Amino acid sequence: MTLPDPFLKSIRDAVGEKAMITDAGDREPYLVEERGLLRGDSDLVVRPATTDEVAAVVRACAAAKIPVVPLGGRTGLVGGGVAAGGIILSTERMTGIREVDALNLTITVEAGCVLADVQTAAAEADCLFPLSLGAEGSCRIGGNISTNAGGVGVLRYGNTRALVLGLEVVLPDGRIWTGLNGLRKDNTGYDLKQLFIGAEGTLGIITAAVLTMFPKPRTTVTALAAVNDLGGVMEVFARTRAACGDRLTAFETLSRRCVEFDLAHVPGAVDPFAAPHPHYVLIEATSPRAGDPLRDDLEVVLGAALEDGVVADAVFAESENQRKQIWMLRETIPEAQKGEGASIKHDVAVPVSRVKTFIEEATRAVEAAMPDIRVVAFGHIGDGNIHFNLSQPAGGDPKEFRDATGMLNRIVHDIVASMNGSISAEHGIGLVKRDELAHYKDAIDIDLMRTVKRALDPDNIMNPGKIVQT
Amino acid sequence: MTLPDPFLKSIRDAVGEKAMITDAGDREPYLVEERGLLRGDSDLVVRPATTDEVAAVVRACAAAKIPVVPLGGRTGLVGGGVAAGGIILSTERMTGIREVDALNLTITVEAGCVLADVQTAAAEADCLFPLSLGAEGSCRIGGNISTNAGGVGVLRYGNTRALVLGLEVVLPDGRIWTGLNGLRKDNTGYDLKQLFIGAEGTLGIITAAVLTMFPKPRTTVTALAAVNDLGGVMEVFARTRAACGDRLTAFETLSRRCVEFDLAHVPGAVDPFAAPHPHYVLIEATSPRAGDPLRDDLEVVLGAALEDGVVADAVFAESENQRKQIWMLRETIPEAQKGEGASIKHDVAVPVSRVKTFIEEATRAVEAAMPDIRVVAFGHIGDGNIHFNLSQPAGGDPKEFRDATGMLNRIVHDIVASMNGSISAEHGIGLVKRDELAHYKDAIDIDLMRTVKRALDPDNIMNPGKIVQT
Repeated sequence: MTLPDPFLKSIRDAVGEKAMITDAGDREPYLVEERGLLRGDSDLVVRPATTDEVAAVVRACAAAKIPVVPLGGRTGLVGGGVAAGGIILSTERMTGIREVDALNLTITVEAGCVLADVQTAAAEADCLFPLSLGAEGSCRIGGNISTNAGGVGVLRYGNTRALVLGLEVVLPDGRIWTGLNGLRKDNTGYDLKQLFIGAEGTLGIITAAVLTMFPKPRTTVTALAAVNDLGGVMEVFARTRAACGDRLTAFETLSRRCVEFDLAHVPGAVDPFAAPHPHYVLIEATSPRAGDPLRDDLEVVLGAALEDGVVADAVFAESENQRKQIWMLRETIPEAQKGEGASIKHDVAVPVSRVKTFIEEATRAVEAAMPDIRVVAFGHIGDGNIHFNLSQPAGGDPKEFRDATGMLNRIVHDIVASMNGSISAEHGIGLVKRDELAHYKDAIDIDLMRTVKRALDPDNIMNPGKIVQT
Repeated sequence: MTLPDPFLKSIRDAVGEKAMITDAGDREPYLVEERGLLRGDSDLVVRPATTDEVAAVVRACAAAKIPVVPLGGRTGLVGGGVAAGGIILSTERMTGIREVDALNLTITVEAGCVLADVQTAAAEADCLFPLSLGAEGSCRIGGNISTNAGGVGVLRYGNTRALVLGLEVVLPDGRIWTGLNGLRKDNTGYDLKQLFIGAEGTLGIITAAVLTMFPKPRTTVTALAAVNDLGGVMEVFARTRAACGDRLTAFETLSRRCVEFDLAHVPGAVDPFAAPHPHYVLIEATSPRAGDPLRDDLEVVLGAALEDGVVADAVFAESENQRKQIWMLRETIPEAQKGEGASIKHDVAVPVSRVKTFIEEATRAVEAAMPDIRVVAFGHIGDGNIHFNLSQPAGGDPKEFRDATGMLNRIVHDIVASMNGSISAEHGIGLVKRDELAHYKDAIDIDLMRTVKRALDPDNIMNPGKIVQT
């Protein structure tokens, strides 16, 4: 698709030549998705510096009915930023931090701010911006909001949606909607910002946000416990939550296989206990109060669980370095999995009370379908989110395994659906899961989504084809 | 307006004669708003018992293009349930509690459940459903969700929106949308439930919800402190939040005038300290852990504030009875205000960092406009929500005062708007604030709301005329 000259002129008038990337080589990084699984197509990347410039670009697109794909840090996993013609709008030059209000516990940032920079700005005001995920060094806050990102702090702080107090959005017709207030209570009509959070850029381009911060933690306790079975994992979770209350910020689980993959492929990975154990739970609790007796509380819980035989072994991080080592075991799993050949990943959620049953049923079902398949289950158990990943049979043919993707997805997702679960807990839909969404969602859901999409973007120019076909 | 016979027959077919109220006397309580300020008009009240019956009623309304006004506990303050023709649909027979899942910390309830009954069901499962407000003995959860109710626990637990994990909704065309999952993470397309939360029944009728519960508090500390000025109030708030973190569940403020009105009109009200003080703050902190040293922590904070002169006096509740007495001072203010003649109320929010300036500026402005006016400012300071109420000059003419409503609203709301605040923090818009909303909201906001309304309810049969005119 060649972009018409009058349109290109209107873009030039909006942002200037320097903010336009037309050279094929320079465009390439904006077209290829991080893992190289998907490749988009677009003749023009535009890099506006201000909200007004974004609005001018979108007005030009609206006038010419040319699609626009918003792009942040390009770390998405479902192809939400993959263009099929039209232009790409990158927010990467919009990195301003507009305001930090420590008494109101809010920070106002532009969409292109890297998540780590938002965290740093909050820390400099002696506060915490709690969104935290693997890609935080490169993902951008506009993308986090557009995908309602999850991460490791959801148990305590909620998903990104819960952290957004206000938004500024360029609408599909190029108007700027300003909802940038930092209010914790506001019932003046429909809560419009909710439309744009998690909409993956299909209803407008988020250009700025007011985010909520928290008092900075002054006490952090991190522990790793070895557990014999999934029932024990859930029991430890229930006991820990009861003892820690809101101070429980993360409760992650790993199977022995996850640790073995780490040991095989991650330099510096260390087996955490003398003996191997079927399951591990990573517990982190924090408190804004210096001297909070969190460690004592957790020692009581784990001590009792050791006596009861629910926990087989446990270790506390005695230094920041040990804390990092414990977290490394959890965070390097996706990387370690690459060393074991092809993998097929499922980012699913079920009610917390169904986690054990889900993992057991899904494991049985995929092993029945492919006897030597290797289940790599881990994740944010505390909020019911399981990364139910599958690695190919050891030494098998990667292509043959990948060819089974549809079959294995169907098995796993059918079980998720039978438990009223989610086939995309934190990664979103984008392109990759769109057909799967259409398969599992009720027709009324899809119809409502289309109704909203058509109402806000009648010409279908905002990131078309993502989430639902219109 | 007389309802046509074929329509009445279709309603009779849907719910049966017994679920229809046509007698004028029996209809009356459904027509008159609680405080008697507004009177609706409708020839028929329908009381369905199930979601399917609600759907059948709405299908009949959709077919005949007859408006339907959903009604819960009838405790709203802005006329959101006041009918202008059409039928009234009361959810009061739909009081089932469908499921309590203590491990997942969720409770699934029907829309007509009284809030206090939801609280009780959660408590029976050794959990907490934290939504709490003055009308909890009669308001119904469907109404709480439809108005995104606030209350006294917002500081810690968020507004009602934050407590809703899933919804079941009868859409304006009578289809049933089922989004009743109890997931904490679900990014499968647009988060449709957000459309209906806070929409005041204009986009559909909420028939059931999955709500999130919390571990039950095992330690509760309640204190009242006397403070000399608003700067001190905000200082005590900042210090208390720093010391208590998430354990701070309520931080309310009252002016001396509030206490004086209580003393004059509320039987049993007692002046909390030997001397009068300009301001009071009510602090409540809770912890799910028995033996949490909350009391010690708060004593340290208030002790230091006493030494610094920020706090003039302080008292802790030493029993549940004393706790109730402290809360009574706060909760009886609206009742006490009635004893002082006519009042004009403003339910506003500003960023927490602007609370002091707002109260000072707004007080100066209304006193300049009406020298003997009596400002009765109190509220949920911790989340920036001020009930900036005004009582008529002592001994003056109530009617004359009420005639100044528009003038005084304009003064107060202009200051709110200048601080990027909200003219309706927790009460909603309904009929009463609709024109005020149109005055203050940006035209783009109003246009977006209309776009959403028209897309979901093209025939405008769902609680028409509320929030925005279409």
